[in-house]
Amino acid sequence: MSVLIVGSTALDSIKTPQAENPRLLGGSASHAAIAASFFSPVKLVGVVGEDFPKPYIKLYQKHRIDLSGLQIQQGKTFHWSGEYEVNMNNRRTLATELGVIEHFSPTLPDAHKSTPYVLLANIAPALQHHVLDQMWKPKFVIVDTMDLWLNIALDDLLRLLKRVDALVLNDSEAHQLTKSDNTLEAARLIHKMGPRHVIIKKGEHGSILSNKDGLFVCPAYPLKKVVDPTGAGDSFVGALMGYLASTRGNPEKNLRRAMVHGSVVASFCCEGFGVKRTTRVVKRDIQKRVRELEALARF
Amino acid sequence: MSVLIVGSTALDSIKTPQAENPRLLGGSASHAAIAASFFSPVKLVGVVGEDFPKPYIKLYQKHRIDLSGLQIQQGKTFHWSGEYEVNMNNRRTLATELGVIEHFSPTLPDAHKSTPYVLLANIAPALQHHVLDQMWKPKFVIVDTMDLWLNIALDDLLRLLKRVDALVLNDSEAHQLTKSDNTLEAARLIHKMGPRHVIIKKGEHGSILSNKDGLFVCPAYPLKKVVDPTGAGDSFVGALMGYLASTRGNPEKNLRRAMVHGSVVASFCCEGFGVKRTTRVVKRDIQKRVRELEALARF
Repeated sequence: MSVLIVGSTALDSIKTPQAENPRLLGGSASHAAIAASFFSPVKLVGVVGEDFPKPYIKLYQKHRIDLSGLQIQQGKTFHWSGEYEVNMNNRRTLATELGVIEHFSPTLPDAHKSTPYVLLANIAPALQHHVLDQMWKPKFVIVDTMDLWLNIALDDLLRLLKRVDALVLNDSEAHQLTKSDNTLEAARLIHKMGPRHVIIKKGEHGSILSNKDGLFVCPAYPLKKVVDPTGAGDSFVGALMGYLASTRGNPEKNLRRAMVHGSVVASFCCEGFGVKRTTRVVKRDIQKRVRELEALARF
Repeated sequence: MSVLIVGSTALDSIKTPQAENPRLLGGSASHAAIAASFFSPVKLVGVVGEDFPKPYIKLYQKHRIDLSGLQIQQGKTFHWSGEYEVNMNNRRTLATELGVIEHFSPTLPDAHKSTPYVLLANIAPALQHHVLDQMWKPKFVIVDTMDLWLNIALDDLLRLLKRVDALVLNDSEAHQLTKSDNTLEAARLIHKMGPRHVIIKKGEHGSILSNKDGLFVCPAYPLKKVVDPTGAGDSFVGALMGYLASTRGNPEKNLRRAMVHGSVVASFCCEGFGVKRTTRVVKRDIQKRVRELEALARF
């Protein structure tokens, strides 16, 4: 089945101690859509400016991403630039130019409205609501978010949490949202806010799923070298949703394996700048790493 | 089979944001010996002063720990006092009084010298060498260490690494030892220093085993509340070694499950001050948490 993904579509200028890469294809929806495309057909909903490079459109198309929900507007594409410290765990934003995303209103083509799987990738909660308002009985809805929305749009986000099946967020965001620095307690408090499934990402330490079946501890795929972690979380949730949409029966039964596939695609994302490594991956590469994760979690 | 454990035997005064507990039974050998005792007969090698409380001797005996290698000397027992911050991840040492441990020389009773499993729990590397010098063809030797020895006794430690089967250390120590902040790279560099098995502890994020079979990612048992993490690492390696000694055949084949048992006993350790919670555990409690870890790692 197909996946609808709304989120940011951006140009990222990324500086690491090793290199500088201007105007890469970035944004939560770009990373998530490419990651999901390995498993299921993807419909991308977003906005770019007239300056958006043609090769990036071609890249989406190479991944057979449906672009009928991608608006191309007069003005500039959202541009983010950031810098990573030596250990790649801390990053700081150097500049943010909102461009056309500032007044983005995601209006869905009619054909999109009955998409069964909906991923509300990281973007303003008001826009995530707006997309959900247009959907017709989706089968499974996941929302991703970031610290910015916890700071400036918490009410919108809290209302959204009552409308979704799963929330994905990282550990520091979970602690910010719940005021608890214990992962179990944070998950318990988030369940009370609405989502039946809570997925807390812990970067190189993997991720945790909490739902009525208890906990699942999902390992991260261990990497010898991290080139650029930008978009790893978006790739994780994109691949997770793409995998879920490719399975039959109750999606809740397949969440664990979906997270493992998310872990693997996120690991590829970290091995190159922007989506450079991810777009060179083939299904076989993913399956190989999934088998490796199986082997290293077995006891 | 039985396990010989050498390490520190101490009185710990521990302050947390919630409580203050003076002169608890502590030290690496105490935690490790009690943890190992759930699985195998334990021979403790250490030193205490005349002030060492009788009830603590009784506690060792309750766990059927062979105390013929425990020296009771004129003077005071090693005393450590420390304080934890709110999140329980950072601690600072308030005072260290070495007492009788300053001139400790671990001379083994003859009956100890052929113990097949040897755990060199955290203590000065020179003393760990001294114990190993007296052993007769041990089957499996694990060494644990701490940042202090990396700072003041690195040469002794490096020589020791050529004499042991496994090194256990935490992630910050691994990075200090290898100058690499990548876990895989750190493990690779430590293998070159000697140990066939490298176990890197990551606290609440679990632990990693690296050996010729590849990697094993061992989950931590998730806790709702951490009361006092002092001794969790010692409990981990003690239970690991105790479990290993209880298995048949090649110990290398049983290392993964040994680590899982280590994880579980360490989780009990964190739920009480000193060894208070651990000493109330029965085998059934451990087996229950091992089954829970199996369930939450399955995908």
